[in-house]
Amino acid sequence: MSISIPRGTQDILPGEVEKWQLIEAKARELCEKYQYQEIRTPIFEHTDLFARGVGDTTDIVQKEMYTFDDRGGRSLTLRPEGTAAVVRSFVEKKMFGYPNQPVKLYYMGPMFRYERPQAGRFRQFVQFGIEALGSNDPAIDAEVISLAMNLYKEMGLKKLKLVINSLGDKESRTAHRNALVNHFQPRIGEFCHDCQNRLEKNPLRILDCKQDHNHELMKTAPSIIDYLNDDSKAYFEKLQHYLTQLEIEFVVDPNLVRGLDYYNHTAFEIMSDAEGFGAITTLCGGGRYNGLAEEMGGPETPGIGFAMSIERFIAALNAEGIELEINQGIDCYLAALGEEAKDYTVGLLQKLRLAGVSAERDYLNRKIKAQFKAADRLNAKYVAVLGDEELSNNKINLKNMATGEQVEIALTQFVEYFQENKR
Amino acid sequence: MSISIPRGTQDILPGEVEKWQLIEAKARELCEKYQYQEIRTPIFEHTDLFARGVGDTTDIVQKEMYTFDDRGGRSLTLRPEGTAAVVRSFVEKKMFGYPNQPVKLYYMGPMFRYERPQAGRFRQFVQFGIEALGSNDPAIDAEVISLAMNLYKEMGLKKLKLVINSLGDKESRTAHRNALVNHFQPRIGEFCHDCQNRLEKNPLRILDCKQDHNHELMKTAPSIIDYLNDDSKAYFEKLQHYLTQLEIEFVVDPNLVRGLDYYNHTAFEIMSDAEGFGAITTLCGGGRYNGLAEEMGGPETPGIGFAMSIERFIAALNAEGIELEINQGIDCYLAALGEEAKDYTVGLLQKLRLAGVSAERDYLNRKIKAQFKAADRLNAKYVAVLGDEELSNNKINLKNMATGEQVEIALTQFVEYFQENKR
Repeated sequence: MSISIPRGTQDILPGEVEKWQLIEAKARELCEKYQYQEIRTPIFEHTDLFARGVGDTTDIVQKEMYTFDDRGGRSLTLRPEGTAAVVRSFVEKKMFGYPNQPVKLYYMGPMFRYERPQAGRFRQFVQFGIEALGSNDPAIDAEVISLAMNLYKEMGLKKLKLVINSLGDKESRTAHRNALVNHFQPRIGEFCHDCQNRLEKNPLRILDCKQDHNHELMKTAPSIIDYLNDDSKAYFEKLQHYLTQLEIEFVVDPNLVRGLDYYNHTAFEIMSDAEGFGAITTLCGGGRYNGLAEEMGGPETPGIGFAMSIERFIAALNAEGIELEINQGIDCYLAALGEEAKDYTVGLLQKLRLAGVSAERDYLNRKIKAQFKAADRLNAKYVAVLGDEELSNNKINLKNMATGEQVEIALTQFVEYFQENKR
Repeated sequence: MSISIPRGTQDILPGEVEKWQLIEAKARELCEKYQYQEIRTPIFEHTDLFARGVGDTTDIVQKEMYTFDDRGGRSLTLRPEGTAAVVRSFVEKKMFGYPNQPVKLYYMGPMFRYERPQAGRFRQFVQFGIEALGSNDPAIDAEVISLAMNLYKEMGLKKLKLVINSLGDKESRTAHRNALVNHFQPRIGEFCHDCQNRLEKNPLRILDCKQDHNHELMKTAPSIIDYLNDDSKAYFEKLQHYLTQLEIEFVVDPNLVRGLDYYNHTAFEIMSDAEGFGAITTLCGGGRYNGLAEEMGGPETPGIGFAMSIERFIAALNAEGIELEINQGIDCYLAALGEEAKDYTVGLLQKLRLAGVSAERDYLNRKIKAQFKAADRLNAKYVAVLGDEELSNNKINLKNMATGEQVEIALTQFVEYFQENKR
């Protein structure tokens, strides 16, 4: 009996995996230009980290985590997102003391959420994200946003929508919070049980409620924009100024909120507005989290970052009908006729490969005709044919599959010749 | 209070992560030349997969797996190795029906074993591995070994030792198994409880026992080499012939065994014999597993592969004192003096980066002198200085930090100039 893949996960196979490789390579390349360096944190962390770093009232922490005890009785959780661990490492490794500030990091790897599997949503998915820790300059907020936007653009996406908002500083958020409580309190009995709890703990999250989102009080709820103090307004205006300077279009949406206490100032989302993309259009989300490092036991440290899913990235490329340029086809197929010639190609093949040529031979003891078919299926640019007779005469025959042109080359000079003449 | 990283795991930080990136990039490059394509399987699988694919009498399965129930009550396990999942995918996705045969795959990613943490041994570690499924040609065994050896060599390792053995085909292994039972049976009472169980289930694994390895019967145990039938001998000789043709040195060690029923013919290990490398010298292990696809519910399919740990790879590089060439330093630091100039560099910085230049500016509102220090710490090849006055005159000053040479450039032509003149 066969064993199947776990529900909600996928194998990424040749033919599809090349898209992932291209996106990841481009992300790494941009990070190098932007001076973000890679950090790799473990796949699992102590469960407490996410309760504290993601928020123990969130759906992620309450319903969607893969949590288990290890053989030593510690509660571990497969990471549902990347920021908490990066900030944990920032604090634990005392990166706040590094001479180069801000500390600019990126990560790339699998994340895990136990959600109902549906089209485009997996229980294991890959996120690429960046975090800039140590600067309070709105120019770095613009930089973070621009890296995400430029990555999408460089891969060919055109139908992008950037939405930004400001959650203000602590003073602004407290004023807004009080206004929210005053707004909802008189009629909170009409709201769901979760919202009733949220009123005290985190009234901002009422605005995110999926159950009550049609309640009339939702439309008239006080907007954070009206409660921004002068500093917060100036910060938000400066961000918009920089985005304009970077020629990045955006819209301000006062309803874009993040429900955790230590989020502040900038919040943003990048969406695809390609037709037929489906219901989940958010490609990337990010924002500023000046209180998070402190929450993790470190010094007060400003921070901002984003996370994007590679699965959604690919879905957006597909929705816009963008074909990535994937290198298909090998440079050279070594076809052989006769025992001695076949034997000889084992060594010749390695020489070609070590000289930088992608090359293949037959491993199924196929007849020469079947070898040519195999070369065809591999889209070989050249096929080199070696028979026992050619071998004894120190010759090999090389055929350019595009032009049909054939040349006979001294076998001992074949690798050199190929390197110089291949296109 | 701060939260720490889980025991036995590590953060890989900038300064160290570049080694991983270089090794992985070289592995991907070689795989492309050798025509192995990437496959990505999930981080966790159904627990049954490993009981069946790794073997339920092994230490890995009995003592070292991270096993847990998900919220739907399924028993899942963080993968302790890569081969079982690749073969699971090969069967599930019916790759045995692909027109291109053999199917040649590689994987790279974290694996998990709950072991006692010690120097160079982690509970999460990264493996790179390849699998070739569908060919019974000893030339592909040689190819698999040569890819591993060439990867080590191309990264600069010199002190390598390749050990090979043959476990023979089914007939040979049955004859050897019977000889082992006859050898140990009379005195099995002198062996540990585990070995007593192994006698019936898998006597080959007695030879691996850490407890009884000094027992006198160990030294006189029948060797598989003496039980190889003609086919198995011919296969093993052919492999050695190919390795010689590929100029790969090796030693035959009849004690190199793999304890699972579906392992056969080729087994190999690559070790470092660098001084001071420590106790664990095995860098890479692999072998042929012709019965595994069938065990997973697929058709009978020959297969061979290897797995290597990147952690050990780096330890071996360190032991040989090999410094990898890591690109250090950025192309250009944009220093600015005055509010307008600072503002202007936000846009200029993005233009440089999108033109392929790695570039940085200040995000801490530092004075010009401190900006120069920051440029120094980032090993900037060039520092461009822009003041409010230069800005109004459409000029920017560019200093080559190696030569001290300075030039004044029209600001609107700066990016072009930089691209053409940077070294």
